[in-house]
Amino acid sequence: MEHLYSQRVKQVKASEIREILKLTQQPEIISFAGGLPAPELFPIEAMKVVTQRVLSEMGKEALQYSTTEGYDPLREKIAIRLNRDGLNATRDQILITNGSQQGLDFTGKIFLNPDDIVLCESPSYLGAINAFKAYECGFKEIDTDQYGMDLTHLEGVIQETPNAKFIYVIPDFQNPSGRTWSKARREGLVRIANQYNLVIIEDNPYGELRFEGERIPPIKSFDTEGRVVYLGTFSKTFSPGLRIGWVFAAPAVLSKYILVKQGADLQSSTISQRELNLFLDLYDFDTHIDSIKVVYKKRRDLMMTTIKAAFPIEAEYEIPSGGLFAWVKLPKHVDTRAVLQKAVENKVAFVPGGSFFPNGGQENFMRLNFSNMPEDKIVEGIMRLGNILKEVI
Amino acid sequence: MEHLYSQRVKQVKASEIREILKLTQQPEIISFAGGLPAPELFPIEAMKVVTQRVLSEMGKEALQYSTTEGYDPLREKIAIRLNRDGLNATRDQILITNGSQQGLDFTGKIFLNPDDIVLCESPSYLGAINAFKAYECGFKEIDTDQYGMDLTHLEGVIQETPNAKFIYVIPDFQNPSGRTWSKARREGLVRIANQYNLVIIEDNPYGELRFEGERIPPIKSFDTEGRVVYLGTFSKTFSPGLRIGWVFAAPAVLSKYILVKQGADLQSSTISQRELNLFLDLYDFDTHIDSIKVVYKKRRDLMMTTIKAAFPIEAEYEIPSGGLFAWVKLPKHVDTRAVLQKAVENKVAFVPGGSFFPNGGQENFMRLNFSNMPEDKIVEGIMRLGNILKEVI
Repeated sequence: MEHLYSQRVKQVKASEIREILKLTQQPEIISFAGGLPAPELFPIEAMKVVTQRVLSEMGKEALQYSTTEGYDPLREKIAIRLNRDGLNATRDQILITNGSQQGLDFTGKIFLNPDDIVLCESPSYLGAINAFKAYECGFKEIDTDQYGMDLTHLEGVIQETPNAKFIYVIPDFQNPSGRTWSKARREGLVRIANQYNLVIIEDNPYGELRFEGERIPPIKSFDTEGRVVYLGTFSKTFSPGLRIGWVFAAPAVLSKYILVKQGADLQSSTISQRELNLFLDLYDFDTHIDSIKVVYKKRRDLMMTTIKAAFPIEAEYEIPSGGLFAWVKLPKHVDTRAVLQKAVENKVAFVPGGSFFPNGGQENFMRLNFSNMPEDKIVEGIMRLGNILKEVI
Repeated sequence: MEHLYSQRVKQVKASEIREILKLTQQPEIISFAGGLPAPELFPIEAMKVVTQRVLSEMGKEALQYSTTEGYDPLREKIAIRLNRDGLNATRDQILITNGSQQGLDFTGKIFLNPDDIVLCESPSYLGAINAFKAYECGFKEIDTDQYGMDLTHLEGVIQETPNAKFIYVIPDFQNPSGRTWSKARREGLVRIANQYNLVIIEDNPYGELRFEGERIPPIKSFDTEGRVVYLGTFSKTFSPGLRIGWVFAAPAVLSKYILVKQGADLQSSTISQRELNLFLDLYDFDTHIDSIKVVYKKRRDLMMTTIKAAFPIEAEYEIPSGGLFAWVKLPKHVDTRAVLQKAVENKVAFVPGGSFFPNGGQENFMRLNFSNMPEDKIVEGIMRLGNILKEVI
């Protein structure tokens, strides 16, 4: 039956993260691999309250089909929340999706013909790379530094890439690098997109999780021509198990996302949207996020100081000022896929960096998640990794 | 920005059903339009019990990320249930999806290159047509009678269609026709698919809702070569708001669906899967389905006898022995889109049949849902429709 499969599905490979997640479900593994929130911070008691009330007060509606766009009061709340960041969102510009991963898939579906080019940060989120690849695109990686994309490099690449469709970026606490774009780079990116008539996909799952310093306005806030598509999610601030994210885009663009959502799965969960909406009505979401940030900051600090103490001197890294991930560069000759093998033998896991470079060739990086493991395991796991790295360097 | 959109998204149009659903959310409308279950039959009290227990007993796991394939105990239960119908499913052959609509979208993604041909019943489910169209395919409609597809016609079309990839069918209480395939046609379809090396997509959302007569084994039960993909859902037997369906396929084929699911949205809702699984542990699902069937049978009877009394003699229809829909054929000159306009003015709605013919040209049908409206509204609504039809015929 092989010949019956589409060209596009031949491009799709298993996500390394998902396969590793399966492996690391064994409780004895210290895992820095997945992008998992800390489960002890999930608002379980609040969920008990809101599930009961939703079922009691609107059970019939909550279990029924509903509109593709999503539950209006929730869309409204998302818009209001976004507007605190200098955006100008209205309810009608929000589509509820199954996590922001679904927004990524729809983005590929809406913009990519075979052989079109996605411009992305180098490195970039592997889940996005895989989602886009299913639409048979190619990638050009743009150099990045601690302020974001190198816009001179970007402009040069655009000029030689007539089939570029969009620029995909994660400007806040990037996955995997942990880096955050400066305001100037954000403004510059919009100018370039306007000049060359490109779309910007701003993927912002971590923006709410800033541990220090001032928030920088989203790229979307500089959008004057409706060409920035903003993807958000409650996965990192509430619960990933509910699968609720959103797309915020100009009406003409959003209408494409809504159409694609209709064909893809009709709508997101009616009941989960109503539960989340009631949670936002009854509880202080900012206080909840603050409690997450306190814990993650502590874990980040602990991970970074342990890395400093335990990793060989050749390891290079920056301190991320938010998000979930630290990113470590090792000498060129180190293959972190081989390191992972040894690590798993020692009951510790991370994601080798190679998968975050869509065009490959860079195997000397490792992505380390600091949000999911308790403090003692962070120390123990980083020590184990340090010992392995000292052997291979 | 128009030129930035992909070819495929230019093919996608708004589903008439979804747009009408929005319209008919006004409570004063008697709607036979959507495929909505009766909300008064949703197991709200049971849901209260299972949501509390899931959150109390496994809250951290229920709100966390989980595997793409789905929650193993639920996959296991689905397999066991399928096997009562003569299937030979194992847990590992089940992928949990967001309703079976997502299985349809994935089917398009996995099998269809641009200009490939889908072979389908004439008429066929418009949500499937829209899902497949997004992959730039064409359709060839196969004649049907009360026993299913005309297999002679099918074979003739296959012989002149080298780029046919799969045959899409709804063999039980078809949407929209309400018809059910005979056993002989099911066996014959598998023989033809084997002979011509095609895939069969068996979409079975309504099979559990048989009001009379004996169940006929699924097409998948005659599959000897792993070329039947079976799509199922809890939307019609439990709740559509939860968005839980499944794909059952041979391991090699299912692995493609799993890969595509990873890129599309990582996984279905962790908590909803666990809630549904606990419901199946604690309650008798067959008893629950029986209670649905009693109500729907009564509504079907009432709708069909009212149609007989109130519709003009030229209206042709069969009595569906299960499912959610009746299908009425009117004289060739009647355009049911125009009828719908008048109907909505009279506060009653249905779906014009034209959208169910992917190649168009047949506007003289109407699809009538009998599951969602209470008895008095069924009578009142059908009477109103009868009066309108008598005017236009």
